[in-house]
Amino acid sequence: MTSIICAGSIALDTIRTPLRTVERVLGGAASFFSLSASFFAPVSLLGVVGSDFPPGYLQRLSGRKGIDASGVVRSREKSPFFDMSFDHSLHTRTVNASELNCLASYVPEVPKRLGQKNSLLYLATMLPAHQLRILKQAAKNRLCVMDTISYYIENDVEDLKKTVSAVDGIVLNDAEARMLSQEGNLLKAGRKILAMGPRFLAIKKGEHGSLLFFNGAVYPFPAFPLYDVVDPTGAGDSFAGGLMGFLAKKQATRERLRLKDLRMAMACATVMGSFAVEDFSVARLESITARDITKRYDELESAVHW
Amino acid sequence: MTSIICAGSIALDTIRTPLRTVERVLGGAASFFSLSASFFAPVSLLGVVGSDFPPGYLQRLSGRKGIDASGVVRSREKSPFFDMSFDHSLHTRTVNASELNCLASYVPEVPKRLGQKNSLLYLATMLPAHQLRILKQAAKNRLCVMDTISYYIENDVEDLKKTVSAVDGIVLNDAEARMLSQEGNLLKAGRKILAMGPRFLAIKKGEHGSLLFFNGAVYPFPAFPLYDVVDPTGAGDSFAGGLMGFLAKKQATRERLRLKDLRMAMACATVMGSFAVEDFSVARLESITARDITKRYDELESAVHW
Repeated sequence: MTSIICAGSIALDTIRTPLRTVERVLGGAASFFSLSASFFAPVSLLGVVGSDFPPGYLQRLSGRKGIDASGVVRSREKSPFFDMSFDHSLHTRTVNASELNCLASYVPEVPKRLGQKNSLLYLATMLPAHQLRILKQAAKNRLCVMDTISYYIENDVEDLKKTVSAVDGIVLNDAEARMLSQEGNLLKAGRKILAMGPRFLAIKKGEHGSLLFFNGAVYPFPAFPLYDVVDPTGAGDSFAGGLMGFLAKKQATRERLRLKDLRMAMACATVMGSFAVEDFSVARLESITARDITKRYDELESAVHW
Repeated sequence: MTSIICAGSIALDTIRTPLRTVERVLGGAASFFSLSASFFAPVSLLGVVGSDFPPGYLQRLSGRKGIDASGVVRSREKSPFFDMSFDHSLHTRTVNASELNCLASYVPEVPKRLGQKNSLLYLATMLPAHQLRILKQAAKNRLCVMDTISYYIENDVEDLKKTVSAVDGIVLNDAEARMLSQEGNLLKAGRKILAMGPRFLAIKKGEHGSLLFFNGAVYPFPAFPLYDVVDPTGAGDSFAGGLMGFLAKKQATRERLRLKDLRMAMACATVMGSFAVEDFSVARLESITARDITKRYDELESAVHW
């Protein structure tokens, strides 16, 4: 089975919602991504944690069937730490603290043994120059997909555009897609971003679903209907995990990137994102089974296909 | 074929968008609804226009194959007039003028000849007491669907709840659904509104699509992807026209209200709403053909069914 190399942040999160606060829980894009993707395909995780990172947290990743965390290095500095509050709607996020710590000086290296395997490559949010560096080390003829955040669109757009032009796919939320394209209409935004280089784009709209752009066409996906959302943190990364996981399972490659697979991958992404928000941290991703995923996928399909 | 009785406003609209302003064009919920529904089933239109209403405008409704406008009365007062501005996103609407004029004193009467026919009944936005009055005159064992606006939820909620409890279906936008249910989560909002009486509810979310609530389940529909939106006015009424039109075409009744028909009706509604916003006033609804509708329906289905 095709595997996935995932490079990205592993962090400690303090999350404050009107109903509950959790402190220094396991977070970071790569944590959500790799747990989500591991249901579909093996994941090799590249990242860094600090000296204060609880061994139990790392064990929750490395001990997971399907996750190889031997590429996670431990730094003498402190772990990345983020403190975020949500309003009652859970739509508006306020960042109270954002400490990169050991992540600031970390330069990702793709181990040689991984460089040889015919795996997919996922670059979670990080300095665009680092994404480019990994692409050079490991891209070869791999199918590469990236994410980014508004900070890099605002502050590092030249490097970011180089990265965007070098990947096969990109996953963004609606605000990021509008910022990167300088275009208010999301469909025009998508068209402009594909013109920068990638072959496909997934725009995530939270509770409003997502849009897939591929081969000149647009495919809308509604979100999975949820009565209770606990914490939106990690939804996008879990979404990307489902997307890449399914593509890997289908042995997608640059040469064999099929619309049918991409659309089913978007549905898997929708399902994985919906699980992630049902609890704090990665708790829900840890408690579900493959059967739960299949069940929700089937429910989504029957709700959407009239 | 089953026909539809539609009671609602016929108005003059001045619409100001950042790109263009049109003055005193044909507007009103019943105008959009009846033109939209007429592609699917015959519509009998009940309403009032003022002494200043251009005969040519009425002719655009009465002269339409499928619309019987003999139930539109002419008042000596002025026509309803609305003046609205949109911001650049076309999401935020400012009401500059809202003159009910002849609509204020108009009490809808269902002609006896219509009262006998086995048709569906659509009650566009109006004073809830008037909706109730029409329901008493014409409901009998008809399938009845209603719309309303936030004004009546804020100012006339007791009468409104009586109306809501007396209809089979209700069409609301997301903000109205939240207001009426006093519930932020749209799925919980939908559940609460169905508990007030109706058998189905369609929540319209504009560019984010819509949700159908029926028999304890929720069915999400994405919007039809549009690169260019000219004027959102009338989208919801055209949506309702497609919904009711398709139900009439399928000869839906209170006894025979099938999920499959409702879901296809929601897709027709999505298509008709998407046409309405492509031009000012009812211009786009007047220029399309049945073939355009079928084509867009098929496009929507292939974009959504993965």
